[in-house]
Amino acid sequence: MSKIVTISRQYASGGSAIGREVAKLLGVPYYDRTIIDVTAKESGFDPKYIERAEQTTTTSFLYNLAMNGMYTQPLTDQLFAAESRVIKTLADKGPCVIVGRCADYVLRDDYDCFHVFIYSTDKFRIDRIVEHDGLSAADAAEVIKQKDKARRRHYKYYTERIWGDAANYDICINTATCGLDNAARIISELVGK
Amino acid sequence: MSKIVTISRQYASGGSAIGREVAKLLGVPYYDRTIIDVTAKESGFDPKYIERAEQTTTTSFLYNLAMNGMYTQPLTDQLFAAESRVIKTLADKGPCVIVGRCADYVLRDDYDCFHVFIYSTDKFRIDRIVEHDGLSAADAAEVIKQKDKARRRHYKYYTERIWGDAANYDICINTATCGLDNAARIISELVGK
Repeated sequence: MSKIVTISRQYASGGSAIGREVAKLLGVPYYDRTIIDVTAKESGFDPKYIERAEQTTTTSFLYNLAMNGMYTQPLTDQLFAAESRVIKTLADKGPCVIVGRCADYVLRDDYDCFHVFIYSTDKFRIDRIVEHDGLSAADAAEVIKQKDKARRRHYKYYTERIWGDAANYDICINTATCGLDNAARIISELVGK
Repeated sequence: MSKIVTISRQYASGGSAIGREVAKLLGVPYYDRTIIDVTAKESGFDPKYIERAEQTTTTSFLYNLAMNGMYTQPLTDQLFAAESRVIKTLADKGPCVIVGRCADYVLRDDYDCFHVFIYSTDKFRIDRIVEHDGLSAADAAEVIKQKDKARRRHYKYYTERIWGDAANYDICINTATCGLDNAARIISELVGK
């Protein structure tokens, strides 16, 4: 087993929990927020800024000009480049599970990867948010709508791919019908072979 | 186990073989070409015409007018309606595996289904066509390009959905990396539980 497992996921679909379980089952490191912390350390960006920037894209030329001067890359693009370097450095160390951060795209060419997309029904995701974060169902519905929109845009901007298009992954699993435990087991078995 | 398994698939991705194996593992009927034959019997259409029409959509108003008169549904739409009735009649009989024919969409509301999308890399599909049909690799590449285009259009026309969008399925499996046997086993285990 020499593969790197990348997990892209809809917010509140259970992707992070599945990632942690797969890492445990395979006995390899799990990287999620670690990537933000390492990027912060290496680039000097504030971790909070990085987290916010991950949910956004460079949409306003004037904003970037004002913040950043005319002849340099937009800050969010610099950040994406810094995160990509961190992801490759982690992947170079050996088998691991990486959640989010467009890692499927970043590692697409030169790494032996198994790419996973985790998604779910709106109901399943809303129930999870209500349970974990104590939001009302209406607020949770609004959260997933906004998060989906942001992730779809962010992914499109940096990868020129469509988020959730099965073609980009080795397997796509709906956690509402397949279950989190089954998802983790299926992925581990496929990668472990 | 009371579910109906629908399998949508890219041409030459192995979806039919997986469907047959899942039906065998679950001990339920498998419907693929049967649907064409039953539809032919019940509607009076020629099976060859049905097969051709499945790969097409109603694109030319003038063609339909010439073939079909002004005030009736286009023939392809009548055929889709006839096939949909056959699919529902088969599904009413109990658990089964149905491959193709937009069955995921036809049965979306009133049936307990497990929806699968089977796809693969171009290389895997081309190799299968070369091996099974004896075409050259270049011709096989052209075949998958045309088939993908036709199926995408057909699916979009009748369902208003995007073909291969993970959101429409319970699981999507890339046969080039997961393998046909694994795919059949995973689906049977998930549905059998």
